[in-house]
Amino acid sequence: MNETNAIQAAEVLIAADLRGIDSHGVARLTGYVRLKEAGRANMNPQMKILHQTPSTATLDADEGLGLVSAPYAMQIAIEKANEVGTGWVAIQNSNHFGIAAYHALQAVKNDMIGIAMTNASPLVAPTNSKERMLGTNPMCYAFPAGKYNPIVADLATSTAANGKLEIAQRMNKPIPEGWALDKQGNSSTNPNVLKDGGILLPLGSGATQAGHKGYALSAVVDIFSAVLSGANYGPWVPPFVAFLNPLSDLPGKGIGHFVGAMRIDAFRDKNEFKANIDSWIDRFKRATPIENNQPVLIPGEPEFEQEQMRKKNGIPINDEVWNDLNELANKLNIELPKVSAN
Amino acid sequence: MNETNAIQAAEVLIAADLRGIDSHGVARLTGYVRLKEAGRANMNPQMKILHQTPSTATLDADEGLGLVSAPYAMQIAIEKANEVGTGWVAIQNSNHFGIAAYHALQAVKNDMIGIAMTNASPLVAPTNSKERMLGTNPMCYAFPAGKYNPIVADLATSTAANGKLEIAQRMNKPIPEGWALDKQGNSSTNPNVLKDGGILLPLGSGATQAGHKGYALSAVVDIFSAVLSGANYGPWVPPFVAFLNPLSDLPGKGIGHFVGAMRIDAFRDKNEFKANIDSWIDRFKRATPIENNQPVLIPGEPEFEQEQMRKKNGIPINDEVWNDLNELANKLNIELPKVSAN
Repeated sequence: MNETNAIQAAEVLIAADLRGIDSHGVARLTGYVRLKEAGRANMNPQMKILHQTPSTATLDADEGLGLVSAPYAMQIAIEKANEVGTGWVAIQNSNHFGIAAYHALQAVKNDMIGIAMTNASPLVAPTNSKERMLGTNPMCYAFPAGKYNPIVADLATSTAANGKLEIAQRMNKPIPEGWALDKQGNSSTNPNVLKDGGILLPLGSGATQAGHKGYALSAVVDIFSAVLSGANYGPWVPPFVAFLNPLSDLPGKGIGHFVGAMRIDAFRDKNEFKANIDSWIDRFKRATPIENNQPVLIPGEPEFEQEQMRKKNGIPINDEVWNDLNELANKLNIELPKVSAN
Repeated sequence: MNETNAIQAAEVLIAADLRGIDSHGVARLTGYVRLKEAGRANMNPQMKILHQTPSTATLDADEGLGLVSAPYAMQIAIEKANEVGTGWVAIQNSNHFGIAAYHALQAVKNDMIGIAMTNASPLVAPTNSKERMLGTNPMCYAFPAGKYNPIVADLATSTAANGKLEIAQRMNKPIPEGWALDKQGNSSTNPNVLKDGGILLPLGSGATQAGHKGYALSAVVDIFSAVLSGANYGPWVPPFVAFLNPLSDLPGKGIGHFVGAMRIDAFRDKNEFKANIDSWIDRFKRATPIENNQPVLIPGEPEFEQEQMRKKNGIPINDEVWNDLNELANKLNIELPKVSAN
């Protein structure tokens, strides 16, 4: 991978670790290397705009990592927003793009609303089904504030992301009802349910809790990311893990992302907007809590707190990830910095 | 109300009744009239574009009904999308806009993706709170298909909309856990919980079921609809019912909506897109069901089925609504057509 791409990709991974999304940081590095070794990821892609208008573009990521193609696409979106108010880029033929919030926050730095979404390999069943048809398909919306941190709504459209099941596995604890079904379609609290062929439930879980809404939102992400761009959708999204092969009858190219940037002052004075966002935050922080020691949080607040702490105290790396990184360094003949795990 | 506005408003209400969203059809008519009588809705607004760029606009709806201002805004969005690929309009100083799907589907008729959202008077508490801070804030995304009906994801960002509680009240039945809390913040299955000062839960309900995601989505709708447009947000959104007065320290004007239109062929060939949407629908209809008699549904499918049925058999009107309409007709000296209820 050339230096420019390597720096960009590392920045996205470190952003995840700083924000406390450990499942999407350097822990993923060995996975990206395995995809490259399997010939399924291109470290130095020749990206190409397939089609564009003043406010839109479709990008062929040439099998590059989303860590590289999504920031490139967001730059195009930002330039278009500077010209005509908003910019929207659909990306085909890509790979895993890390955390959605990194991409959306690039727009926020430019006093724009940032939007980022991606589809992902299938783990989630639509309502009434027990078949893996959708990824955990995250959507992220980020809004600039004045004196406060941006408001960042960054969420997988499943009730729980896979990372939460992995935590339960390590602690050998049952998962709550409503996260997953076993392969027969029965409710399961087994943290290993996915290894046994089970499925994750969409946001809202069962029928009485409106799981059909999470299914609909996941479909929205899939369509923007893949049907609009010409990538693979639904059960055809290629697996992230290199030991599973993509299906053979693919309807599109690679996985798909979708990013957008909307200039605040294309709608109203940006300082008025930011003052209103600050007032929104102030008012919601003052909402009457159920328990006095559990105040209302602003979307994105826990991640910014984590970032501040980790920038000061460092990022804890668990033993498994540390060993993986050491093995990778040995294999590639790279010297790791002399720091200890934990 | 002048004839043009009356026809437009009626069309939105009838669309709701045809699609089976009885809570948002002619049942609302008396409520609109009461708002007008209270001097809080302007039937013949002079709408004004406050600010615009090639892909964006902000509209002052002059206290008009959203039934009139949102279709007007969507037309502006469609024109902008024709020019530069996408169009986005934020609307301030408006009132209730009916069903979101009606507005999004106007874009679909033009081979565009349609987006519509609105904020609403507060009934929903953010996670950890028992205070009404957000409306049921719906978001709608509609995508054109080829041989099939459009895919329409139209959802309140609360677990259950108020209309579902009203049905439980009429049937004198408890509501499921996860829909609402009482005013102390305890889980409640009482269908009258809102009348007793309770709150609705955001999509995802409690903490283990990811209710914080529904809260984040509701915040996104509130910010697009009101902070971006200059309308009232959060607990300041004026009540729909005329017997409750708006708060006095309002940070904006009226309620807010947000609509968008994205030309499909600003991204890729529209026939290829539609063929892929048809393939998406075909594949999801074939997803393995849990119960053979409960197949997977496509987002929007039940509403299109209902529409087909009601276009053929008529729209059932319940006694209460029928009596309301008769009283209204008497009061306004209008002759109702000679049809019977039910």
